[in-house]
Amino acid sequence: MEISELGEFGLIRHLTKDIKPENETTIQGIGDDCAVLQYAGDRRVLVTTDMLMEGVHFDLQYTPLRHLGYKSVIVNLSDIYAMNGTPRQVTVSLALGKRFTVEDVEELYAGMRYACEEHHVDLVGGDTTSSLTGLAISITAIGDARPEDVVLRSGAKPTDLVCVSGNLGAAYMGLQLLEREKSVFNAQVQSAKSKIQTPDPQDTDIPFQPDFAGREYLLQRQLRPEARRDIVESLRQAGIRPTAMMDISDGLSSELLHICTQSHTGCRIYEERLPLDYQTAAMAEELNLNVSTCALNGGEDYELLFTVPLTDNERVTQLPDVHVIGYITEESLGPVLITRDGQEFTLKAQGWNPLAKEGSGE
Amino acid sequence: MEISELGEFGLIRHLTKDIKPENETTIQGIGDDCAVLQYAGDRRVLVTTDMLMEGVHFDLQYTPLRHLGYKSVIVNLSDIYAMNGTPRQVTVSLALGKRFTVEDVEELYAGMRYACEEHHVDLVGGDTTSSLTGLAISITAIGDARPEDVVLRSGAKPTDLVCVSGNLGAAYMGLQLLEREKSVFNAQVQSAKSKIQTPDPQDTDIPFQPDFAGREYLLQRQLRPEARRDIVESLRQAGIRPTAMMDISDGLSSELLHICTQSHTGCRIYEERLPLDYQTAAMAEELNLNVSTCALNGGEDYELLFTVPLTDNERVTQLPDVHVIGYITEESLGPVLITRDGQEFTLKAQGWNPLAKEGSGE
Repeated sequence: MEISELGEFGLIRHLTKDIKPENETTIQGIGDDCAVLQYAGDRRVLVTTDMLMEGVHFDLQYTPLRHLGYKSVIVNLSDIYAMNGTPRQVTVSLALGKRFTVEDVEELYAGMRYACEEHHVDLVGGDTTSSLTGLAISITAIGDARPEDVVLRSGAKPTDLVCVSGNLGAAYMGLQLLEREKSVFNAQVQSAKSKIQTPDPQDTDIPFQPDFAGREYLLQRQLRPEARRDIVESLRQAGIRPTAMMDISDGLSSELLHICTQSHTGCRIYEERLPLDYQTAAMAEELNLNVSTCALNGGEDYELLFTVPLTDNERVTQLPDVHVIGYITEESLGPVLITRDGQEFTLKAQGWNPLAKEGSGE
Repeated sequence: MEISELGEFGLIRHLTKDIKPENETTIQGIGDDCAVLQYAGDRRVLVTTDMLMEGVHFDLQYTPLRHLGYKSVIVNLSDIYAMNGTPRQVTVSLALGKRFTVEDVEELYAGMRYACEEHHVDLVGGDTTSSLTGLAISITAIGDARPEDVVLRSGAKPTDLVCVSGNLGAAYMGLQLLEREKSVFNAQVQSAKSKIQTPDPQDTDIPFQPDFAGREYLLQRQLRPEARRDIVESLRQAGIRPTAMMDISDGLSSELLHICTQSHTGCRIYEERLPLDYQTAAMAEELNLNVSTCALNGGEDYELLFTVPLTDNERVTQLPDVHVIGYITEESLGPVLITRDGQEFTLKAQGWNPLAKEGSGE
């Protein structure tokens, strides 16, 4: 059977459906942002891991190694925050292609260490090896939380408010912009090469000087995303404990469906409430894309999606950079999007799925 | 600077030399088989991670996916045992090439799960994504130990006995055997193709039927290594606490140098005491290799190397499958190998180093 028939989540479900934890230290295994472990009565240990492959998750033609290092740590810390925890340690495994120099790895590490320092996280180990082809990065983050603070994906209840932090779709727009500038540049190189008839494709001295004026925010969201520790902290300070939470890596729709499935609920989300940045909207118009589709399915925003009891309505709406976009319903009502003109659609996850066939997704 | 100038350990030292843990939960970071974390007063959490890349660490032409899955978990559990700990959880990240089917991944997972079951370890999470090229496997293992039980590489003292479990060099011989049979097979295919003039290299129906008769043990050591939980348990039962311990993944010489460097000692190791299996010796003779060199530098044995106080001499020599191969000395005496004919050589690590130039190693 082709893996693309199942997709990433289908494959994982298929492979792990009958895995039952047998250790008393395993509180929760596969199926959330982190595994939850208990090595002491008064603390839960949270573990998460992410793998980034060159050519699949990043393109070194336009991704500075320092940014890549930073992002590769941040996406893991984001998973710890999404459990309402505090990250403490990371391990870093790298497989390096032959073209990498020591200076390259220093750049990569500098970004990783900067992310660690910003979040007071220790880099405690890893593995460094070679790769026959591209760069592979695998990072595991470990954190902790008090048992009563851990927030799973499965705790949403009907009438809970659905909230997101920040704004959505900008990282995806940043990627579109980078890909477009890359195409333009490669075409220029191609054209120059055919004129000067150099045999070596590296022999043109055209610099890669893409036009990003006024689009810096989109680039920053793609190349240098943030993990929303501030949101977790302001929820705590406001005395709000989310009933369910996860970070938005594959796109809002995909993540909403995870929460609905695991909480056995439906939801009603309002298109007009999706938080958008001006640059995202402008770029969508320029590229002739529907900006709501980008916000729903774009991915890589690393914002937090969470649900809070209706009784927290007043407090949550006062938090900076938090937006209520809808509410949780009974499971039988399904996951629904209400468009600006009042139409109802069933939410579908069309987020980025590396194992899906072109255009399918899950 | 070329990475090969530094090698794996040099690169890691270079990148991490000024990393200072700042979390109170981080007891020990980079530099041992595992990081040691403290999330409770009465337990240490141990974390280790390993990355395996197709074409660098394994060759799918002769490595069954089930064995590969098994081995990829085992090499991580081995690191937990090497800290005198008990493994509890693993996370598994996979990047799959396009040619992989669901059945392939099932085979890989079956091996991983078998290793987990054997060692009562829970598979609690991971990441599954795609790769433009080969298979990449990154596994993190988590375990625990009582604080007083954790054994680092740095605790060896002069007069301590140096011990190894099992026997050495067999996994390396297994690899040589597999590589030889692969060459023979590929030559047969090449020759058949030229005779029948098929345009497709896959079009010969020659089965890969290598001649392994009488060499099964070497293959098993390469394809299906064991993590020596039994040794850790028998040491515990005998009331012996090693002063230093690590597992032998890169070769005995390389690991001995780690212990000597981190414990600030020298050592004297006796060639005649290196434990060898009969098949290892026979294969070395057939391949015209020095069997002691293979035992010292072969790697991938996943046996335990440890030091115990001289006062434990009687008890340790009675343990099954444990061999005393020498003793620890003052640092000024250096790491020394005494050959069968009484000559003294300084031990050098010539073990497998994926980031070194051909033939250099560290």
